[in-house]
Amino acid sequence: MSEARFTIVGAGSMGLLFAAKLALSGHALEVEVGVKRREHKEALIAEGIKLHDGNVDEGKDKQPAIVHPAIGLLTELGQAHTLGQVHFIVLTVKQSAFNPEFVREIRAMMGPESWVVCMQNGIGHVELLELEIPRERILLGITTEGAMKSSDVETWHTGKGETSLGAVVYNPASPALAAQKKLAECLERAGFRTFLSKDITRRVWQKLVINSVINPLTAILQVRNGQLPEIPSSLQLMRELFDEAMAMAAALQLKLDTELWEQLLEVCRKTAGNRSSMLQDLQSGRPTEIEAITGGLVREAGKMGMTLQTHQTVYRLVKALEGSATGRD
Amino acid sequence: MSEARFTIVGAGSMGLLFAAKLALSGHALEVEVGVKRREHKEALIAEGIKLHDGNVDEGKDKQPAIVHPAIGLLTELGQAHTLGQVHFIVLTVKQSAFNPEFVREIRAMMGPESWVVCMQNGIGHVELLELEIPRERILLGITTEGAMKSSDVETWHTGKGETSLGAVVYNPASPALAAQKKLAECLERAGFRTFLSKDITRRVWQKLVINSVINPLTAILQVRNGQLPEIPSSLQLMRELFDEAMAMAAALQLKLDTELWEQLLEVCRKTAGNRSSMLQDLQSGRPTEIEAITGGLVREAGKMGMTLQTHQTVYRLVKALEGSATGRD
Repeated sequence: MSEARFTIVGAGSMGLLFAAKLALSGHALEVEVGVKRREHKEALIAEGIKLHDGNVDEGKDKQPAIVHPAIGLLTELGQAHTLGQVHFIVLTVKQSAFNPEFVREIRAMMGPESWVVCMQNGIGHVELLELEIPRERILLGITTEGAMKSSDVETWHTGKGETSLGAVVYNPASPALAAQKKLAECLERAGFRTFLSKDITRRVWQKLVINSVINPLTAILQVRNGQLPEIPSSLQLMRELFDEAMAMAAALQLKLDTELWEQLLEVCRKTAGNRSSMLQDLQSGRPTEIEAITGGLVREAGKMGMTLQTHQTVYRLVKALEGSATGRD
Repeated sequence: MSEARFTIVGAGSMGLLFAAKLALSGHALEVEVGVKRREHKEALIAEGIKLHDGNVDEGKDKQPAIVHPAIGLLTELGQAHTLGQVHFIVLTVKQSAFNPEFVREIRAMMGPESWVVCMQNGIGHVELLELEIPRERILLGITTEGAMKSSDVETWHTGKGETSLGAVVYNPASPALAAQKKLAECLERAGFRTFLSKDITRRVWQKLVINSVINPLTAILQVRNGQLPEIPSSLQLMRELFDEAMAMAAALQLKLDTELWEQLLEVCRKTAGNRSSMLQDLQSGRPTEIEAITGGLVREAGKMGMTLQTHQTVYRLVKALEGSATGRD
């Protein structure tokens, strides 16, 4: 019996990165990857995951590591459970994939020692999972690892980051804590710096605030992250969005880092040459994460009777840009 | 002595249209066109104004009317005045051209019977002119004539419209009324449907409200006018901008048409295939009219202690798009 079993759900840049690094970390782990499309499954079985270190632009000549974890459609995974073996179902798909059918498929994968680990941006996914899955079985992960996909089977580890893990509600007596420790141990061994957090919600919100500023603005203005604070009126918009989101966090009694604004500017500097995922999604005609990020904020505000006017406007603009992707002129 | 003298300032699509139609309307008028660039002056002298009827796409085979009014740089015009001859200085440039030097040049053109006629979109230009020119000498014109330029000397009369004229402050005893009547007579003879308005400010604001909805949104979303109300979240944004602008007009005691929202939708339908001037300007890397339109609204609101949150956001977005025009990705 292997030490732990991982079902990585989703084979985007991050899913492939986690699956490959975990599989490469030794025989103590059993790793399988769940995908949605049959062609994707077949491509991954035929070619394996190709993992590159560095940026797509820089490393075209280097040989990737090639890994062959088990691959299956979501409906084919997680059937057999081994008693005493901890099982992590790591969800790396976008929140927009969390429809009722998907949640039922995840539920069907779970055995007595399964944990669902959410790696999503934004907020609102726990509520969607809870329709079928007990809240105590859900862990949250926030990562700043950088990854980019160059094909269905090829992923690039573009930047080392940190991963924080925590339970939706912190309870030191819960078996969730032992599960988190085991998960952190596996991730560390696979090469990911990992921390346990007693207040993961705070970290979720900090990432949410940063994403809610950078993602929609870069997508609407069609600029790279580093340009955002360089344009005076764009910097004003950043500050406006930031202040509204912070007011919302304060209304929810969340104590976010006092220097979060400086961290936000630092993210823009460090990722200056990157196109945000939302800009990439819009430019490729894919749905964006606007519902999970800005939509999540706007809806939370609505529940409190607040209106985040600037977030609401950029939310509608990004929705309109998604809607007009085929008709842009 | 001719019946009236026209100095058309600016040789954009609208300036060339008015100059050509007035010049074609008979020998009773003296028409001159003032331009900024020497090459533009030389091109117009060499080739004349080429006036087409209809859309650029449809009429490429038809022969244009060619007209040769007097052409000069702004500094060369309006020196000699004939006693008893009314003189209309029709400003067809964008409000952004109204810098102190420009206003002084216009002032220098004026004789005892000169009237300055502002055809600008937005608000704020009268205040800029007033720094040098008496308010009683300023007339306002609002036109829905359609025009498009295809070269420095070529303009297309793409749609027949209506032109309203009025004084900044209506006063039936003022000589401005006689001047407006003469101007209307000349414009009618040149083929423009023209009305005198006792409340031109109301019409200025109605056009402002419509422009403040259509122009920034089409520019940010990069869609043609007809698409705006077709995309659900874009329609929500239109309504948001409209309501904010109407609240502002109400605060200024302006009684705008009660069916202005329907008129706005009608404009989108009638000009469905058009790219708004702001979208065209952004796409060509030219400065837009955002300062005169949305900027004018936002500043008026500021004077009243109001904040038009959605207008402020789209204002900043368009400013950022102007600023990033070279860096878009």
